[in-house]
Amino acid sequence: MKQTSQYPLQMDADGVMNFLKEVFVEQWHAIGFEIISLTPGYLCIRLQPSIIHQRPGGTLSGPTMFTLADVGAYALVNAHTGPRPLSVTTNLNINFMRKPDLAPMIANLNLLKLGKRLAVVNIEMANESAPDNLVAQATATYALQQV
Amino acid sequence: MKQTSQYPLQMDADGVMNFLKEVFVEQWHAIGFEIISLTPGYLCIRLQPSIIHQRPGGTLSGPTMFTLADVGAYALVNAHTGPRPLSVTTNLNINFMRKPDLAPMIANLNLLKLGKRLAVVNIEMANESAPDNLVAQATATYALQQV
Amino acid sequence: MKQTSQYPLQMDADGVMNFLKEVFVEQWHAIGFEIISLTPGYLCIRLQPSIIHQRPGGTLSGPTMFTLADVGAYALVNAHTGPRPLSVTTNLNINFMRKPDLAPMIANLNLLKLGKRLAVVNIEMANESAPDNLVAQATATYALQQV
Amino acid sequence: MKQTSQYPLQMDADGVMNFLKEVFVEQWHAIGFEIISLTPGYLCIRLQPSIIHQRPGGTLSGPTMFTLADVGAYALVNAHTGPRPLSVTTNLNINFMRKPDLAPMIANLNLLKLGKRLAVVNIEMANESAPDNLVAQATATYALQQV
Repeated sequence: MKQTSQYPLQMDADGVMNFLKEVFVEQWHAIGFEIISLTPGYLCIRLQPSIIHQRPGGTLSGPTMFTLADVGAYALVNAHTGPRPLSVTTNLNINFMRKPDLAPMIANLNLLKLGKRLAVVNIEMANESAPDNLVAQATATYALQQV
Repeated sequence: MKQTSQYPLQMDADGVMNFLKEVFVEQWHAIGFEIISLTPGYLCIRLQPSIIHQRPGGTLSGPTMFTLADVGAYALVNAHTGPRPLSVTTNLNINFMRKPDLAPMIANLNLLKLGKRLAVVNIEMANESAPDNLVAQATATYALQQV
Repeated sequence: MKQTSQYPLQMDADGVMNFLKEVFVEQWHAIGFEIISLTPGYLCIRLQPSIIHQRPGGTLSGPTMFTLADVGAYALVNAHTGPRPLSVTTNLNINFMRKPDLAPMIANLNLLKLGKRLAVVNIEMANESAPDNLVAQATATYALQQV
Repeated sequence: MKQTSQYPLQMDADGVMNFLKEVFVEQWHAIGFEIISLTPGYLCIRLQPSIIHQRPGGTLSGPTMFTLADVGAYALVNAHTGPRPLSVTTNLNINFMRKPDLAPMIANLNLLKLGKRLAVVNIEMANESAPDNLVAQATATYALQQV
């Protein structure tokens, strides 16, 4: 059921990073991540956490993983629509399944739907050191800026 | 990030169907579906809809797809825990993405987590005739009957 | 934070029931419920379950409660937009919190948002005999038919 | 359907604030909020945002509201269980309904369920200046640390 090439890219990885740094100019240092790969329908990003991302128990906090999912989905959607900074999340559902290490996290994002008004993204997150142990899964719906 | 063999099966497809028919003895005619395949971590099921499953616009209704997701997750979880009829859904989130035809639906289910108390399942649904056009995606959490 | 009169009604309870019976002409016997009250922003409905709504353990099934939430939200949204049969659910998230008796259920629905394109509804469900013991809570997003 | 006194408090507002500052010792400056009121089953908190909480369009970011909901639910749950720092979110679903001003936000939290293993919290958020215009609604499930 994987959708591989249904949705063509409008920006490459460098274009997406420049777009994010521009629109999050005051916040980027706090939400920074690295793009590992970007292909039609798919984005893989990497977060290098610091002490600020810790929660009680010494694991990565829920808000950190929400931010990774939400900003990642924003990046993936904009990569496919071209720059629409005012596209907004309308719903995000996240399941936390295992305790993550406070260590690099990988998020794999998949564009399930790109309609005229709404886009839906699936997100799976795991520590880089244990890619088969899903730490969290999320789905995000974005309302697209109309242009 | 696919988890292929982490969770071994405790029942095969025939065992699961017999279990479902037994515990849903009064309801089975209303929620019947067919198991296409069952492997460690994965279940594929098929629903043949009838007029009762229709919603305004002539498409498959949301409650029908919820039922397919929820009963399918119950089947997948029990296939991996052995029969625990009192395991219950605690959360189900479903995104409806495209209008489905009132025609055979396929649901692909994937066991994301099987803990001691909670299990999490991802579900993707599409018409059999258009397997790449996802109609709906859901995630379900089950609280496992303690034995 | 309750929103009491922000959204005026376009149909009264009788109008909503006639609309539902018309658009669900083939399905109504299976999803029938009774409107207890309808005021701007709020709908209270009642379901009288039968054996078909039972799940293992003798309680009301999850799909029954999903149907009550989803059809109730459809009724509440249409009561405020006027008849738009092609409005569709885009997301529904449901938390099952207690085991319900197989006995009359009450759903209280609240219109959180009515935008031009999207509506959001909150739904709380309890057995009629124990209104303070919430059995389930849901939120539904509808994409409104554009007229 | 409001549950007013079903669940007694184990900590008062000062106790909860001290607990939060202790367990989030390295992160507190980034997630700080103020408790407005705490009564059995209910918590009201206030966030004073800064430029770091802004998203494109000049509104409050989604991750900021997620953090307010998630940390608020953690506070409300611990207020009712007594200090259990290792209680963790298992699911959080959030609906963003209106564009919030980058101005003080109020979150009203309601403990829908407090079981032996799981707690469920409803969260409604609005700008302090417009309390009837809900900006976001969320539900969070916490798995309670077993003591």
